[in-house]
Amino acid sequence: MIVVMKSGSQQTHVDHVAELIEQLGLKAHVIVGTDRTVVAAIGDERDMEIGAVESAPMVDRVVPILAPYKVASREVKPDPTVVHIGPNNAEVGGEKLAMIAGPCSVEDETKLIEIAHAVKEAGAVGLRGGAFKPRTNPYSFQGLGETGLKYLAKAREQTGLAVVTELMSIEHVDMVAEYADVLQIGTRNMHNFNLLMAAGKTGKPVMLKRGWSATLEEFLLAAEYIIKAGSTDVILCERGIRTHESYVRNTLPLAIVPAVKRESHLPIVIDPSQGTGHAYMVPSMSLASIAAGADGLIIEVHADPEHALTDGAQSITPETFAKLMADAGRVATAMDRSI
Amino acid sequence: MIVVMKSGSQQTHVDHVAELIEQLGLKAHVIVGTDRTVVAAIGDERDMEIGAVESAPMVDRVVPILAPYKVASREVKPDPTVVHIGPNNAEVGGEKLAMIAGPCSVEDETKLIEIAHAVKEAGAVGLRGGAFKPRTNPYSFQGLGETGLKYLAKAREQTGLAVVTELMSIEHVDMVAEYADVLQIGTRNMHNFNLLMAAGKTGKPVMLKRGWSATLEEFLLAAEYIIKAGSTDVILCERGIRTHESYVRNTLPLAIVPAVKRESHLPIVIDPSQGTGHAYMVPSMSLASIAAGADGLIIEVHADPEHALTDGAQSITPETFAKLMADAGRVATAMDRSI
Amino acid sequence: MIVVMKSGSQQTHVDHVAELIEQLGLKAHVIVGTDRTVVAAIGDERDMEIGAVESAPMVDRVVPILAPYKVASREVKPDPTVVHIGPNNAEVGGEKLAMIAGPCSVEDETKLIEIAHAVKEAGAVGLRGGAFKPRTNPYSFQGLGETGLKYLAKAREQTGLAVVTELMSIEHVDMVAEYADVLQIGTRNMHNFNLLMAAGKTGKPVMLKRGWSATLEEFLLAAEYIIKAGSTDVILCERGIRTHESYVRNTLPLAIVPAVKRESHLPIVIDPSQGTGHAYMVPSMSLASIAAGADGLIIEVHADPEHALTDGAQSITPETFAKLMADAGRVATAMDRSI
Amino acid sequence: MIVVMKSGSQQTHVDHVAELIEQLGLKAHVIVGTDRTVVAAIGDERDMEIGAVESAPMVDRVVPILAPYKVASREVKPDPTVVHIGPNNAEVGGEKLAMIAGPCSVEDETKLIEIAHAVKEAGAVGLRGGAFKPRTNPYSFQGLGETGLKYLAKAREQTGLAVVTELMSIEHVDMVAEYADVLQIGTRNMHNFNLLMAAGKTGKPVMLKRGWSATLEEFLLAAEYIIKAGSTDVILCERGIRTHESYVRNTLPLAIVPAVKRESHLPIVIDPSQGTGHAYMVPSMSLASIAAGADGLIIEVHADPEHALTDGAQSITPETFAKLMADAGRVATAMDRSI
Repeated sequence: MIVVMKSGSQQTHVDHVAELIEQLGLKAHVIVGTDRTVVAAIGDERDMEIGAVESAPMVDRVVPILAPYKVASREVKPDPTVVHIGPNNAEVGGEKLAMIAGPCSVEDETKLIEIAHAVKEAGAVGLRGGAFKPRTNPYSFQGLGETGLKYLAKAREQTGLAVVTELMSIEHVDMVAEYADVLQIGTRNMHNFNLLMAAGKTGKPVMLKRGWSATLEEFLLAAEYIIKAGSTDVILCERGIRTHESYVRNTLPLAIVPAVKRESHLPIVIDPSQGTGHAYMVPSMSLASIAAGADGLIIEVHADPEHALTDGAQSITPETFAKLMADAGRVATAMDRSI
Repeated sequence: MIVVMKSGSQQTHVDHVAELIEQLGLKAHVIVGTDRTVVAAIGDERDMEIGAVESAPMVDRVVPILAPYKVASREVKPDPTVVHIGPNNAEVGGEKLAMIAGPCSVEDETKLIEIAHAVKEAGAVGLRGGAFKPRTNPYSFQGLGETGLKYLAKAREQTGLAVVTELMSIEHVDMVAEYADVLQIGTRNMHNFNLLMAAGKTGKPVMLKRGWSATLEEFLLAAEYIIKAGSTDVILCERGIRTHESYVRNTLPLAIVPAVKRESHLPIVIDPSQGTGHAYMVPSMSLASIAAGADGLIIEVHADPEHALTDGAQSITPETFAKLMADAGRVATAMDRSI
Repeated sequence: MIVVMKSGSQQTHVDHVAELIEQLGLKAHVIVGTDRTVVAAIGDERDMEIGAVESAPMVDRVVPILAPYKVASREVKPDPTVVHIGPNNAEVGGEKLAMIAGPCSVEDETKLIEIAHAVKEAGAVGLRGGAFKPRTNPYSFQGLGETGLKYLAKAREQTGLAVVTELMSIEHVDMVAEYADVLQIGTRNMHNFNLLMAAGKTGKPVMLKRGWSATLEEFLLAAEYIIKAGSTDVILCERGIRTHESYVRNTLPLAIVPAVKRESHLPIVIDPSQGTGHAYMVPSMSLASIAAGADGLIIEVHADPEHALTDGAQSITPETFAKLMADAGRVATAMDRSI
Repeated sequence: MIVVMKSGSQQTHVDHVAELIEQLGLKAHVIVGTDRTVVAAIGDERDMEIGAVESAPMVDRVVPILAPYKVASREVKPDPTVVHIGPNNAEVGGEKLAMIAGPCSVEDETKLIEIAHAVKEAGAVGLRGGAFKPRTNPYSFQGLGETGLKYLAKAREQTGLAVVTELMSIEHVDMVAEYADVLQIGTRNMHNFNLLMAAGKTGKPVMLKRGWSATLEEFLLAAEYIIKAGSTDVILCERGIRTHESYVRNTLPLAIVPAVKRESHLPIVIDPSQGTGHAYMVPSMSLASIAAGADGLIIEVHADPEHALTDGAQSITPETFAKLMADAGRVATAMDRSI
């Protein structure tokens, strides 16, 4: 870290800061500038509460130098991680793009299996569908629970698609892990550290959705929790952030793709359905995600969005999905990748 | 809800929307404007997936009319809720302001008890302190666990202060409820609905911190989860939101106070420590919170912020806290309230 | 507009709102719901101060129904506008994508002409470069003024590129219009309505950059000012918004592309240089913009970014630009467009 | 500045960065850490394009150390600036709080003079009112122009209130300066640097409103433009920022008050009307502003908000204003200030 002293700080203030730094086990290095004095701390500061130094007299601010993530970082592991999912070992993070599609919630066995066949045929390798739904409104449909998981498993059996489904609570971790190929951690739980560790302990692939207002650093630290707990197969997922924009439900910041590729070895997929909130935007944002370098997409597909129990406004039909996959294939080719 | 049709929509599109509305059990009422047709849905839409109507052809957008919260709303309960906390039944939401103070984390028994005495003497009625800490960084200090809870209980015994401490995980709910007077749900868990329900089931007072990017509606719906589960004693807490501002760690939006007072009967307190991230801002934001009409404050106080294991940059010393309480008393008097 | 009454409102409150609506020249239509009464106002509300109705007793809120823009809207003009720029009448908004590139600021005649040749050869149709620079810091380089404009004109003469340059002040409108093919209105001036009108009066093509925190509606209303003043050739440009994200200088919200295509007939181009703030992100965000359906790109290119007088961190070299154009051509082909 | 090198950078990369720093006229100082090397640049970097160094190979990022403002900073002028406004030399920034009130727009001579008398009687020292209105919608009421200014002057004559009115365009600077006591620069023009300089050249007091998404640094740099141009009497005004919050029109970040007091010697006033967008929030946010340490308030007051031509939803009546001033007086006393 770099500690910037206020203008007018005395030798005694600088000495005190140097002492605090040494107490942390770091080495202090003072640089007297023309206007300001700064004190650099040499050593590994990542596990320290360096912010506390801001409380020392005449300190203006503390600037961290090292990003705090370790096992999620590209510095530690320069080669990209490729995660394999489902009965067919579909890859996420390799040359092939991973297309994951399905309803927001599992509503009904027949409908789910129809959708699964439809998205499989169009090119998907994964089936999404929530059995446990985190609902903002306590009066809304909360999901079918284990019954929903069973339908997903049946759909996998028939199609070979990898099942991607949300884990909402530690008490369900064994149950969800039994049926799912990929445990999804939703946006609302990105900072639920106990849940991250429980998911990681299963050793299964985990799809980690970025929190609505999480920083890139917090996103990668959440991945770090999962990896540390035992699963190295973390798939990052961007699904939009909260901003002042009102023509979308969330703002989809695609520059996270090159940023993640620079900072981390983990694959990243994009959710253009939640990432915009409107079905009409899903095709263009899907293509944009591929061109941005994403490793896959996770898309809400429903046969009858007007009657969907959840997320109808942002679900596309199987027909739109099939057309989108065709277009996506062409953009993927232009990017030297394939579907 | 109001469904706004696109310009150029035909009778058949309008009829289809009306039919969807009737299928939801609502009554459709068509209004043909000079430029646009809108279809109003009459009935209680709060538990319905009204967004799905956006998927119908030629629908421009869907505007909800009713706020979805019920038991948290002032419409349902016009009288303000007063929550009583701790051995002395200190009130939150009444004429007296509730001052809650203490370290970010419980670090050590002696230090905790010293702080407890100091803040009590200055006018506090509650003692804050985390035994379980949600840490962004997996390598950071994670709290003392049950040992920390025991220290808190001992401090209560000596001072009569109500213990306010964070519940991070369902598995700890019994343990935390045994020691705490108020269960705190942190920012990162505001959308952790299972945890909200577990906290509510204890029947104990719950302090619910607003998520970094939660809307007012989501905040009150989270309270609704707790109330529905069994605790009517919910204390809302604003602790800052994520914005583009960088001179603060979070932006503290005090207009939430009159908004909550208008929409809900629940009391609201402000956390100016996390709400700004800088100790030097805590006194002025504390006074501003009182003048805004808040029902109390929750403030991080540490005897030696330079060596705090967590949140040192935003902790004030007991001396600063005592001075602040004196100033706060004067502002409270100006507002016809007291400390 | 729809006026939502508070719960508990009386007939007299509803009548009063109806009267206010009739005073505005609109027709009031009352709908009594099970929980709330709403009053719909029928007629063209777009030029009215409808917000004032919120002040009436027992009004909860006012919901506008009509988007306020007219000549910028697709409803009024369903066919997309194609703008032709520069000596070669390059199109913006047609099948061909418009690539505009050049230095942030014009710094030197020789360097500018070299860059112009390089970007032309790589496939650009426009040359960007600021002669008047809006600088946040009054001590920073402010641009070469008319001299810079002359260099741009000379570069156009040699290459046939259209000159795109910023108009910062009404007093320079004649001067800038004399040299430029496209008048650029910068982010900081999107709400500078007098400048918008002055630019529009020239009848020249205008590139309008979205404000950092402008809504889509405000963006299109700014275009409306220009069109109303006399220039129908408005090119919208997205260049990033201010959010909590810190790994970018601005968050680039590409979903604005389908939103603009739905709401307006105007073409839209993307600025991935200012839209991210980092050179390493420019190639991927350029390709993503094309796949999102944008009509072109405006990119900062500098032969020696380390010594650029402005925006060095986000400028790419001519070599990187040439490589990017080759990749962009492939993505454009996949989108049935060309460069 | 501090240049942080990437992990794996070689001596040659470090040398190159050191050379770039020396070329800027600064002195390079290399610190080899355990994980990263950083290069500190010693000297006054404030006028330099330091961002360009980010383009050098193996540079991770560039961290500025010095805030770029000079004459607006407290470092340069430790004593607070007190601005005197209007015929009675009312002070802004001293012990007395400056209360400025009046309609959003000047609509009519009689009504304006009535309001002026009413707010004067209640304790105001300034009269606000727009003669030139920046309207997002080109079809909205644009203000009375010079006629409006004349009404304001007449109201001043009768009441002694200082006239605070917006300058929107350089061409009106002489006209507005002739009638106004304080030139207001609106939010939309905070980055309109030519207008800032034109206002500063008049030597008159200038009230500078913060841009919707401006950083604190940009806000103070805009003040720097005005001071450099000739007016040292700059009054900062916070009027709300754009965030994801929807229960307000803008989020009012009162922590800007202690931040400005720490960084600058300039006074700061708060606009709770635009800062929230709802009349019902104005009283509590006014009191909160005073308790936060603001030097005054600027409030929209209209005798008949339901029929106001602009900003009706956020205007309070003269009766509400009188009540507010009484409450404000008590909070001011609690803060050792007065009205």
